[in-house]
Amino acid sequence: MSVFTDVPLAQKLEGSLLKTYKQDDHPNKMFLAYKVCMTSQGQPWVSSVVRKTRTQIAQDPSLNFEYMPVMGMKSFIQASLNLLFGKNSQVIMENRAGGVHTVGDSGAFQLGAQFLKTWRRDSQIVYIISSQKEPHGLVFQDMGFTRAPHGCIFVIGNIGNCKLTQGQWTQLMVLMKSKQIFPFFDIPYQGLATGDLEEDSRFLQYFVSQGFEFFCSQSLSKNFGIYDEGAGILAVVALNNQLLLRVLSQLMNWARALWLNPPTAGARIITSVLCNPAMQGEWKQSLEGVVENVMMTKEKVKEKLRLLGTPGSWDHITEQKGSHSYLGLNSQQVEYLVKKKHIYIPKNGRINFTCINSYNIDYITESITEAVLFTKDSEK
Amino acid sequence: MSVFTDVPLAQKLEGSLLKTYKQDDHPNKMFLAYKVCMTSQGQPWVSSVVRKTRTQIAQDPSLNFEYMPVMGMKSFIQASLNLLFGKNSQVIMENRAGGVHTVGDSGAFQLGAQFLKTWRRDSQIVYIISSQKEPHGLVFQDMGFTRAPHGCIFVIGNIGNCKLTQGQWTQLMVLMKSKQIFPFFDIPYQGLATGDLEEDSRFLQYFVSQGFEFFCSQSLSKNFGIYDEGAGILAVVALNNQLLLRVLSQLMNWARALWLNPPTAGARIITSVLCNPAMQGEWKQSLEGVVENVMMTKEKVKEKLRLLGTPGSWDHITEQKGSHSYLGLNSQQVEYLVKKKHIYIPKNGRINFTCINSYNIDYITESITEAVLFTKDSEK
Repeated sequence: MSVFTDVPLAQKLEGSLLKTYKQDDHPNKMFLAYKVCMTSQGQPWVSSVVRKTRTQIAQDPSLNFEYMPVMGMKSFIQASLNLLFGKNSQVIMENRAGGVHTVGDSGAFQLGAQFLKTWRRDSQIVYIISSQKEPHGLVFQDMGFTRAPHGCIFVIGNIGNCKLTQGQWTQLMVLMKSKQIFPFFDIPYQGLATGDLEEDSRFLQYFVSQGFEFFCSQSLSKNFGIYDEGAGILAVVALNNQLLLRVLSQLMNWARALWLNPPTAGARIITSVLCNPAMQGEWKQSLEGVVENVMMTKEKVKEKLRLLGTPGSWDHITEQKGSHSYLGLNSQQVEYLVKKKHIYIPKNGRINFTCINSYNIDYITESITEAVLFTKDSEK
Repeated sequence: MSVFTDVPLAQKLEGSLLKTYKQDDHPNKMFLAYKVCMTSQGQPWVSSVVRKTRTQIAQDPSLNFEYMPVMGMKSFIQASLNLLFGKNSQVIMENRAGGVHTVGDSGAFQLGAQFLKTWRRDSQIVYIISSQKEPHGLVFQDMGFTRAPHGCIFVIGNIGNCKLTQGQWTQLMVLMKSKQIFPFFDIPYQGLATGDLEEDSRFLQYFVSQGFEFFCSQSLSKNFGIYDEGAGILAVVALNNQLLLRVLSQLMNWARALWLNPPTAGARIITSVLCNPAMQGEWKQSLEGVVENVMMTKEKVKEKLRLLGTPGSWDHITEQKGSHSYLGLNSQQVEYLVKKKHIYIPKNGRINFTCINSYNIDYITESITEAVLFTKDSEK
């Protein structure tokens, strides 16, 4: 008799859309839900500096690829923190921002959650706040902060997409402060929301200036195009250096149990780029290029839908930031696109706009028009 | 008031010996406890094929470094399983050996432990059996199996070092079987114990042939010299393919939460080498080279101790396999070496013999002699 007799097949959490797409043999099939940014040739985007740096590192005889400390690669952690907060920022100058090198953002959340599970025993309530789950990224307006209990944790993803006014930010922070809510931010692709690295992490400054302590997961895999290696940090901001060191020492023990040494191939490439002003400049330009292309694609999609006379307003397409945005289609329209037109998009209609290029934009916009007209007809 | 007020500084688990060594400014100081194999020039050993392959991969325009599946790199998993069990072995042919690509052996144990915590609820007792903790690797003789409860888990590390006879193996397996003990093996550096890849994993065949189901962590970082990236798998052997798929599906959900996508830079290099017969041959030769050097160094150390007239028998040095072996010194002698001679070795006297080379062997053997004579004198 097997040891594993009672083990059931686990339910798959995701991937079925991609699987269905792969099994489809229609010549016009297309997949608009890739997680990575794509080039206009339909290939995963990689920042131009990455290939060069990868070769340089491979050929560098002085590198020995020895074990890293449990904390990870020091220079990588520092470069990542500088990118998040600014080299001359208050928290960096006061030595109260630190980090642990993690296996991407999953690793950062795993590590942070283990810490909070142990050291935040008074409140084990967590709210996952992600603009990905809300059609227009305006997540805070409908959240009803008064219902969030004292001392809970807010995991705040993709906050860069939230269009809050200065007044709304202030109001939000006053509420969080009075309730002693602990923020755990997620910065999955700094620079790929607005094309401006500083702009994408500016909200962190607000929290720092209001005296918040917080965690922040920063992943650098997407904005460098090193998708196959989760390169990130769990950043910690504490009120002073002594508190910071205590938190980091605890995190280190969990990191030891989780992966002992974080992987460094991606981190080494990223650090080389960030520490070389010329290469950092080239990287920033490549980020701007991606964001400009996304905006251009969105404009084109909107314009084509207008020319096709597609019913409804499509302004929301260009109002959203970042590569992944909502088309604003209902489930019936999405189903029409998938089933009738072989255009694979998630149920919520949030697609990766970098998957749209000059070869497929006409088919896509015409299909959207068809889907909208079809569902309008069926409503009658 | 800080959120982190109650968080204490975590106790450091390791690293203090290396730290003391680094702070020592004595000209003759040396560190004999590195985890990695060293070359005769005192540099971390890297298999010669690794550098070549790293450059080839960096320059390959067809690679796109896209996200891997949660399970990891399929070709890497298969190549690792073939290495563990043999391409034409029973378990591979019957599709009942599988694996999940992990972040090194720490990741494999983390993943395996989470599975067992959930699916082996009847017995949550685990025994950690490691020859590293026993002077001569003969761990099973003194273990008293009769005391191990029914259904417990044995985590068996470095079993390659255990010199069990065929009869002892049989006896061990009969006992484990009757008590339904679940084995969780650790193969941290296949090929670096005896220089023969098959020899180092032969004991797995015994367990397979006796109808055991088990987990096995296999790390390929050390035997390729890619220390800065934990490249490994958690191998699973089940009674049939259906059971295997159920176990793998559960493991995949934990892997998703732990790191989402395992790092692939190391795995890609290793797979390239393993799937190319010429490169695999070169790799095997490089492993044999390391093991031959270790044996030669041990012989030389023993011979020098003999010539110096050091009291005691030193045969145990050459009787042990692998780069890391016990010198057989007591704590007073170890302390003498560290404090008086600036030779840094762990308290148990288990050193990395690849740290000994033609430049330091005389100083080391003379110091050992001094330490032994000093403690003999102080006994009088």
